[in-house]
Amino acid sequence: MNILEIIAKKRDKKELTREEIEYFITEYTKGTITDYQAAALVMAIYINGMKNEEITALTLAMANSGDILDLKDLGIVVDKHSTGGVGDKVTLILAPIIAALGVPVAKMSGRGLGYTGGTIDKLESIPGYQTDISIEEFKQNVRKIGISLIGQTMNLAPADKKIYALRDAISATESIPLIASSIMSKKIAAGADKIVLDVTYGSGAFMKTKEKAEELAEVMRQIGEFAERETVCVITPMEQPLGRNIGNSLEVIEAVEFLKGNMEEDVKEVVLALGSNMLRLAGKGENLQENKEIMLETIQNGKAIQKLKELIQNQNGDTNYIDNLEKFEKAKYVMPVTLEEQGVVQRLDAEIVGKTSVALGAGRIKKEDKIDNSVGIHLEKKIGDYVTKQEVVAYVYANDEEKGKEAVENLKRAYEVL
Amino acid sequence: MNILEIIAKKRDKKELTREEIEYFITEYTKGTITDYQAAALVMAIYINGMKNEEITALTLAMANSGDILDLKDLGIVVDKHSTGGVGDKVTLILAPIIAALGVPVAKMSGRGLGYTGGTIDKLESIPGYQTDISIEEFKQNVRKIGISLIGQTMNLAPADKKIYALRDAISATESIPLIASSIMSKKIAAGADKIVLDVTYGSGAFMKTKEKAEELAEVMRQIGEFAERETVCVITPMEQPLGRNIGNSLEVIEAVEFLKGNMEEDVKEVVLALGSNMLRLAGKGENLQENKEIMLETIQNGKAIQKLKELIQNQNGDTNYIDNLEKFEKAKYVMPVTLEEQGVVQRLDAEIVGKTSVALGAGRIKKEDKIDNSVGIHLEKKIGDYVTKQEVVAYVYANDEEKGKEAVENLKRAYEVL
Repeated sequence: MNILEIIAKKRDKKELTREEIEYFITEYTKGTITDYQAAALVMAIYINGMKNEEITALTLAMANSGDILDLKDLGIVVDKHSTGGVGDKVTLILAPIIAALGVPVAKMSGRGLGYTGGTIDKLESIPGYQTDISIEEFKQNVRKIGISLIGQTMNLAPADKKIYALRDAISATESIPLIASSIMSKKIAAGADKIVLDVTYGSGAFMKTKEKAEELAEVMRQIGEFAERETVCVITPMEQPLGRNIGNSLEVIEAVEFLKGNMEEDVKEVVLALGSNMLRLAGKGENLQENKEIMLETIQNGKAIQKLKELIQNQNGDTNYIDNLEKFEKAKYVMPVTLEEQGVVQRLDAEIVGKTSVALGAGRIKKEDKIDNSVGIHLEKKIGDYVTKQEVVAYVYANDEEKGKEAVENLKRAYEVL
Repeated sequence: MNILEIIAKKRDKKELTREEIEYFITEYTKGTITDYQAAALVMAIYINGMKNEEITALTLAMANSGDILDLKDLGIVVDKHSTGGVGDKVTLILAPIIAALGVPVAKMSGRGLGYTGGTIDKLESIPGYQTDISIEEFKQNVRKIGISLIGQTMNLAPADKKIYALRDAISATESIPLIASSIMSKKIAAGADKIVLDVTYGSGAFMKTKEKAEELAEVMRQIGEFAERETVCVITPMEQPLGRNIGNSLEVIEAVEFLKGNMEEDVKEVVLALGSNMLRLAGKGENLQENKEIMLETIQNGKAIQKLKELIQNQNGDTNYIDNLEKFEKAKYVMPVTLEEQGVVQRLDAEIVGKTSVALGAGRIKKEDKIDNSVGIHLEKKIGDYVTKQEVVAYVYANDEEKGKEAVENLKRAYEVL
C-alpha cells in the first residue's frame, strides 16, 4: 500500500477501503506519512466527501491509534458530547443528575479552545478540584460514588489530535466526514458503550444551519450503528448562548443554581432532552417523558446537587463554594451594557458573545494561554425580550478595564433589536 | 491577506485574484506558508481547477519568484520546450539548425529526472563539454557564434521547483493548470520572448490522450498571449519512443547522424514542425513549408553539423567524437532482444522503454544518482514493422550483466505483436 495511490483515489472521488484508511492513520500517527501528504488527502476528503463506511473506518482507525479506556467493569457507560456551544454548562448539570439516578458517569472532558468553553476548565474554577487524577483512582471514584469527571490524561486518539490541528491550519474544519469521525473516535477511545450527542447549529456552532446539523447527526448515528455503539442525537439551536452566564466560575454558578431548582428554560430543555435519552440507553426507562420527570424529581429532592457535592469533595474540591456561591472570587469590574435603540431582541449573536468572553480571558486563543476564572458575561436580555432605551441588557465581568470596555462595545454589536 | 482564506476560496471552487496568487507564491517561496498549507491549496487547485487568468497569474508569480534571465540584448529569443518524451533528442538537432539560420539560441536546459532524459545530461556525454559556464560567458558565446546550451546555473523560478517537488509527493502531477504554469514560468524566467512547445501525448508522456494534450496546449497558448510571450504548440504522439536510440551518448550519436543526413522519419517530423514555427516566430519566414525546406537545406549543405561542432568546441568539448562517432565509449554488454511471437508490432510502450533505460543507469531516480553515459537501448523494430520469430527487435547496452538481462526481459513486455 502506498500513500500516493490513496491520495490519488480520493482525489478522483473513489471510495477508500478500510485497509487504506487504517494504513493512512497508522503511518500518519507514526510520522512516516508527512503533514503535507495528510493535508492533500484531508483536502481531497473535504472536497470529494466520504461514504458512511469510509467514515466509520476512519473513526475506528483514529480511536485505535492510541490508548483505549476500558470501562467494562463499571457497567454500561453512556457518554454525552456536544458539538460546541457558547455558555454550554450542560455536562456540569447533567452528570450529577444521571449519577444520582444510578447510571455510572465516568467522563473525560476536554479543555476549551476557541470560543466554546471546556468542562474541565469550568470545574477547575472550584478551588481544590483535581482534574488530573490517575485512571485507577478515576475508576475507583466511579465505583465508590458513581461519578468522576477528569481531564484527558491518557493518549486518546492521537491521530485525531494530529488531524484536528492540521484541519485548523488548512481551512478544512467544516466537513461532515471529518467532524463526525473526530467526535466519534474520541468517544469510542474514551470507553463509551452508548453515546448521546448534542448536535448544535447556528452562529455559535460548527454547523450553521439545522439541515447541516441533521446531516451530521445522521452520519454519526450511522457510525455508531456500524461501530456497535448505539448513538442518539439531539438537535439544538445555538443562535444565542445557552443560559445567561458565559465564563468559567460564572457558568459553575449557573449550573449550581440550576441544580438548586432555579432553571433557565433553554438550559432545562437541552438537559432534559439529553438526559432522558441517556437514561433510556442505560436501560433505566423507555419512556422519554417519564425519564424527564424523574430527572426533575432528582433535582427537587436535592439528590442531584448532593451528588455534585460528593463529586467535588471526592476530587478534593471545596464544597463550601457550592453551598455559598458568594464565595467565588469576583471580577474587579462589573460593567453594564446598554443599547441605543429600544424594541424586541431579534438577534443575540452567540459567536460574538463567545469571542468576547475569550478576549476577556475566559478562554484560550492558543493552547498555552492561561484562563481567568472570574471574568465573563451575564446576559439580562435574550432573544424575544423587550428592551427599553438605556436598560441594561448584559453585564461584563472584567479584570482589565480596557478589555472590559472593548467587551461592552462588542456586546452592543451582538444584539439586534427591532 | 491570509492563506486560510485563499485555501477556503479554492476549496469552494471560487476564483483567486492575482494578488492572492502572488501572496501565496511569495510567502511559500519564503517559507512563511508551510508545505502542508501549500499541499492543501495545490490539491484544491487539482480538483477544482483554475481559470486561464488565474493560471497566467500563477505562471508570472512563479517566474518572478527568483532570477529572470535578461536576454534582451541578444535580439528575439525563441525558446523551445517539450512536455516530455522518451528518446527525445530534438533539442540537440534543432538548436544548431536554428542557429545556423541566424536565430540566436541561448538555452538553459534541465537535467533528466524520471524516465524522460535531460538535454544537459546528453551533452555532457561529449568529453570536455562544459555546461556550467557563467551567464556572462553564456551570452558572449551567443553573441560570438549564435548559440550556447548550458545547465540551469541561476535561481530560476524557485517557487516552481518547490511546487513541482510537492506535487510529486502528493499525487498532484497530472493537472493542466499546474503543468501549464510550471512549464511557462520556467520559459519566461529563462528569458524567452517567444515560445514553441512540443506537447506530447501517449504512454510516454504526461498527457495520456490527444484531447488532454490539446487542452494543455490551448491553455499554454493563452497564458503566452496574456503574458505577451507569443506561444505556438505542436502536438506530438509519444506512444513509442522517438527515433531509435535511448540513452545519453546513444542519443548524441543519433542526433549527429541526423545532422549528417541520416534522418529517422518520426524525429524528422517533430524537428521540422517545431523548427518551422521557431523560424516563423523569429521573423525568418511566414510560410511553414518553406521554412521546413530551408531547414533541410541547412542539413544537406553541412551548415547545421558545422554549427553543432562550433557549439561543442566553444564550450571545450572534443569535436573528434562528432567526426568519428566510433570514439564514444561502448557499453560492456550489447544484448539482443527477441520475441516469442511473430507479426506486426502493434505497441512499443514508451514508458516501459524509458524506465528500462533509467534502470540501466541512463537516468536518475533520485536527484543525486550518477548517470552512466554509455548504457541505453537501440530499437531495431518499431510500431508497424514486421517481426519474424527470433528476429532481433532491440539491443540493450549495459555495463552490468544482471541489469542487462533484466532490461531484456522488460523490453519483451514493451513490445506487442499481432
